[in-house]
Amino acid sequence: MSDISVGQYDFIYNAFSFTIATMGAATVFFFLGRGQVSKTYRTAITVTGLVTLIAFYHYFRIFSSWEAAYTVVNGTIKSTGLAFNDAYRYVDWLLTVPLLLVELILVMKLSQKETYTKGIRLGVLAALMVALGYPGEIAGTVGSRWIWWVLAMIPFLVIVSDLFFGLRESIAKQPESVRGMVSAARWITVLSWCFYPVVYIFPMIGFTGGAATTAVQVGYTVADVVAKVAFGVFIYIIAVRKSEAETAAIPATVSARLAEAR
Amino acid sequence: MSDISVGQYDFIYNAFSFTIATMGAATVFFFLGRGQVSKTYRTAITVTGLVTLIAFYHYFRIFSSWEAAYTVVNGTIKSTGLAFNDAYRYVDWLLTVPLLLVELILVMKLSQKETYTKGIRLGVLAALMVALGYPGEIAGTVGSRWIWWVLAMIPFLVIVSDLFFGLRESIAKQPESVRGMVSAARWITVLSWCFYPVVYIFPMIGFTGGAATTAVQVGYTVADVVAKVAFGVFIYIIAVRKSEAETAAIPATVSARLAEAR
Repeated sequence: MSDISVGQYDFIYNAFSFTIATMGAATVFFFLGRGQVSKTYRTAITVTGLVTLIAFYHYFRIFSSWEAAYTVVNGTIKSTGLAFNDAYRYVDWLLTVPLLLVELILVMKLSQKETYTKGIRLGVLAALMVALGYPGEIAGTVGSRWIWWVLAMIPFLVIVSDLFFGLRESIAKQPESVRGMVSAARWITVLSWCFYPVVYIFPMIGFTGGAATTAVQVGYTVADVVAKVAFGVFIYIIAVRKSEAETAAIPATVSARLAEAR
Repeated sequence: MSDISVGQYDFIYNAFSFTIATMGAATVFFFLGRGQVSKTYRTAITVTGLVTLIAFYHYFRIFSSWEAAYTVVNGTIKSTGLAFNDAYRYVDWLLTVPLLLVELILVMKLSQKETYTKGIRLGVLAALMVALGYPGEIAGTVGSRWIWWVLAMIPFLVIVSDLFFGLRESIAKQPESVRGMVSAARWITVLSWCFYPVVYIFPMIGFTGGAATTAVQVGYTVADVVAKVAFGVFIYIIAVRKSEAETAAIPATVSARLAEAR
């Protein structure tokens, strides 16, 4: 990884800094925005903010580790001997990926039982997916990297099928004003997640060196911003619209009293 | 402890960072979630958040101490001469373990008198348990380590018996929707706590070296996450359900007034 150019090093460096700013700002937005939605959806927005907060912490660590791993002296990149700790990403995903699915479940307002069972099921599958990816990441050979990739793809595909078939009925029951958005949130999840197994394959197909490192680091970063921040904003808009629709549906006096209580 | 491999060192390092993120996120979750429960249960949730906040602080210290104790230069582990400060764990437990029992007592909403007597009794026993464990941790001989282990096990067993026999009646009086969960919270406490005296024995039965260090550090970390965060989420769900049940049980007008007051 020491064969990167100064330009590539700087580009990754700035991408990490960009993400610290984005995750931090998103966290503040979600936490302040909690008050804009009704009590029913507040936990969904809390979890959305926790995801970006956890990512904010990890991008700080990733940034510091990147800074400590290299120095730019007189226009050339020099490795300091300290390794860049890529494990921060996996630790982050282990926490945030299950929570992202919990966000989606919570904003749908299923029955208490369904929320619980679907939340546990998707959360465990997501954690399993990330945990199975990591041994391949630190494996020495291309062969074992492929084995772990295949193993991690199993829970990945189960989650995708759950999102598309398991949630189909629940999505049909969502109020019309948000049905399209809930479905879109599901698509954002699947499409942004597809990036990860593709990037994972790069070193297995001979794509290495400075350009590959840049593609991997910037790629993961963009995917994280889309999967956590863009997805979170969708969740937020869905929660706002559902709160408005539900308040409008109850008689004016009760509604006024509820508003006072809020 | 200097015979650990780079892989083991990194694994422990990442486990500590994971726990900083988890404890921090949990703290924010509990403090924001206070507003989701009725006034009666808010103190229980405050205490739950304090436990993870205190642990967040200590894992920051533990992480820094671990980082300062070793350096990884060009793929080899080198001790820096600074000792890793394991006492942070005991300081943490001295504060958090009594508070964990207070959480459980508070969410059960016993009578004022019972809350006070049971809280004091369990809190003092828990602090005693931790305080008796520490002299053994820093003792030079296996013999005195055993003595302190036995002494610490006495309050441990009294707490377990209190949880199972002393709280049996109070659990039977909990609303049906949460009775199973309160009982489960008690089980989480006992099962996650059992890990600590077992880990404590490792050096006394000849399990030492890098693998033992990894088992101890990662083991304590996992036990802390389960005992504080998973347990805390249980307490939170119990509080939410009890709040809902109690609000639904009173006539609409009173309920509206209560909502206003909240």
